[in-house]
Amino acid sequence: MPSHSPSPTATRSSAATAAAPEPKQRIPLAAIPTPHVRIDPKVVADNIERMASYARQHNLRLRPHAKTHKTLRAAEMQLAAGACGLTVAKPSEAEVMAAVCDDLLVAYPIVQPTAAARLAALAASGTKITVAIDSPEAAEVLASAGAAHGIRFDLLIDVNLGNGRTGMGDVEAVARLAEKIAHSEGVAFAGLFFFPGDLMGPPETQEEGFKRHATRLGEFRQRLLDAGFEVRVVSGGSTPTGKQSHFNALLTEIRPGTYIYNDRMCVTGGHATFEQCAARIITTVVSNAVEGQVVVDAGSKTLTSDGAHHVDGFGHVLEYPEAIVRRLSEEHGMIDVSRCDSVPRIGERLTIIPNHICPVINLMDVTYWVEGDEAVAEPVAARGCIW
Amino acid sequence: MPSHSPSPTATRSSAATAAAPEPKQRIPLAAIPTPHVRIDPKVVADNIERMASYARQHNLRLRPHAKTHKTLRAAEMQLAAGACGLTVAKPSEAEVMAAVCDDLLVAYPIVQPTAAARLAALAASGTKITVAIDSPEAAEVLASAGAAHGIRFDLLIDVNLGNGRTGMGDVEAVARLAEKIAHSEGVAFAGLFFFPGDLMGPPETQEEGFKRHATRLGEFRQRLLDAGFEVRVVSGGSTPTGKQSHFNALLTEIRPGTYIYNDRMCVTGGHATFEQCAARIITTVVSNAVEGQVVVDAGSKTLTSDGAHHVDGFGHVLEYPEAIVRRLSEEHGMIDVSRCDSVPRIGERLTIIPNHICPVINLMDVTYWVEGDEAVAEPVAARGCIW
Repeated sequence: MPSHSPSPTATRSSAATAAAPEPKQRIPLAAIPTPHVRIDPKVVADNIERMASYARQHNLRLRPHAKTHKTLRAAEMQLAAGACGLTVAKPSEAEVMAAVCDDLLVAYPIVQPTAAARLAALAASGTKITVAIDSPEAAEVLASAGAAHGIRFDLLIDVNLGNGRTGMGDVEAVARLAEKIAHSEGVAFAGLFFFPGDLMGPPETQEEGFKRHATRLGEFRQRLLDAGFEVRVVSGGSTPTGKQSHFNALLTEIRPGTYIYNDRMCVTGGHATFEQCAARIITTVVSNAVEGQVVVDAGSKTLTSDGAHHVDGFGHVLEYPEAIVRRLSEEHGMIDVSRCDSVPRIGERLTIIPNHICPVINLMDVTYWVEGDEAVAEPVAARGCIW
Repeated sequence: MPSHSPSPTATRSSAATAAAPEPKQRIPLAAIPTPHVRIDPKVVADNIERMASYARQHNLRLRPHAKTHKTLRAAEMQLAAGACGLTVAKPSEAEVMAAVCDDLLVAYPIVQPTAAARLAALAASGTKITVAIDSPEAAEVLASAGAAHGIRFDLLIDVNLGNGRTGMGDVEAVARLAEKIAHSEGVAFAGLFFFPGDLMGPPETQEEGFKRHATRLGEFRQRLLDAGFEVRVVSGGSTPTGKQSHFNALLTEIRPGTYIYNDRMCVTGGHATFEQCAARIITTVVSNAVEGQVVVDAGSKTLTSDGAHHVDGFGHVLEYPEAIVRRLSEEHGMIDVSRCDSVPRIGERLTIIPNHICPVINLMDVTYWVEGDEAVAEPVAARGCIW
């Protein structure tokens, strides 16, 4: 490729180079300043294997969402465990993940021509790109970019089964969009897509919701079959719904993300245990000047302001389970220790399971993957990929 | 300096180089993908001048907190307008800002020896470093690093006047800490520090709070004077309290941060107008599939989950003031447009004033500073500086 145009090949090699300096430096755990995110690779491997095993058992393709880890090492582990490909949200994430994966689903309505052009260039370099869309406008933008680059995007039509974020709700409109796609150069109709964000409750509450989803999905699917379309892919599933996916017999593919690390929301939702939380924030007590409180150096620049259902505070302190991370400012986490039998001293390191791990990882340049008493810094290669 | 040790000098020049490639490329506004943060330099200059003028008028030293912008260009504008130095939270931010400023206040209790050593190295290279602390432990860590590097940190003692985040509350304990500092190598007592986070209401409600603060501060100060200490610095002040600082006659220095850009919290708190919001998120409508709602590509990875008092939602949409940014996921902003007379179409760009600009900037690699119909990308040089 000519050197004056940014080529996907160049993107791949630079991402791979940035992510894999050899040999990786091992750092003693105590020498890593706080705050930082520590990853237990053994727990990661177990989390990956449990979901992979579930998918194999139920004959579902597993396409993990890379948004949780944004990290090539984690993606490679998922692919080695049998993932059929990866899910991403944005073209810039796709470019990063293309370093290790040649089959990517962009689970996001692409409507900017520049974004479509980036994806088309990636596809032209040999990465299979599927995009989930919910409007004729997105189909036109992608068709135009696909045709211009001499490639064809597989398109899934995003349908709203109750979550109400994106997704079309009208069966006839979906059929019209499929027709439009079928008659456009640069794109091909491949199936249906949904996000079951309305089924975030405990596993035992989800069966009825899944059956409702299946019924509704069946209406979209049947209308498309009647019109002569093949509905090859039906893609759905999140971490909270991951292991109940077999209740929806129409599903061919699931896209859990958080399961690789888990977080406090997974635990309070009944989808994981604290032991299965592979990503932990290590933080230091910096102040105890205010009675009944300690302040740690993990604030909203580390924990984010994301809350969690049914529980107080911004994270769970493993060493002091009675403590409540009551307030955050950017660099300060105010922890109420008034209910604790003993209180942490200044300089003491605490371990916090954050409410929501995905945006935490997006704040980090690296995470620290533990090997014995040491760790290696793994680049969060897709951090900040908002385009 | 020997090349094998990371030197503050090297940090300075690399930060300066990264921030000032010459000539800066000008990009047409329409060619910048969304989401992004657009900065109006004229509004920035006006905001800087208003606060500088207030400080001059009341004979207060102005030491802006760099956490809001994390950007060398913005820091240089503040210094050119008469700021006496800058405030930062972390040593890594200090290293970045030392490229343009030789007088830094670290408004954070430093208790990790590695952090203290970084600051001492910076001080040894010629940057004046003051640190605000609230414990004997912090004094010891800083004294040890200062002595080891042959420098002396100026220390301010952080006192709690009602905010309850950090800060000592006991007059005698403050006097004991000042004595300890006075008898330690590597540190010197310089004065008092507080964060008036309890006075975030509208300006007209603050006078009484300021007088309460002044009374309490006076008790700490008198005790120190009685013990023979000079209380050279009394540092307080935030953006919401910035222009009421003259109600507290003991103040010598104020540390507002947000005022440079302002945000929705500043507007709803009565401290700024939308016209004075210099930093705006440009976002694109990507879906309108769900009735009464549009989805934009600014989610919590752009807007953050920070709320604002007294108002709904996660930001103010300038073009559609009746719209409510109701829900966020990482890449999706769900905007309720059911109360709008007209609704934005797919592909339309919207301008959002975020609730809280500081953590938004921390998510961005660059911000776009407008020049006519074009912009230049300014590195957010201290983004992600959590150490």
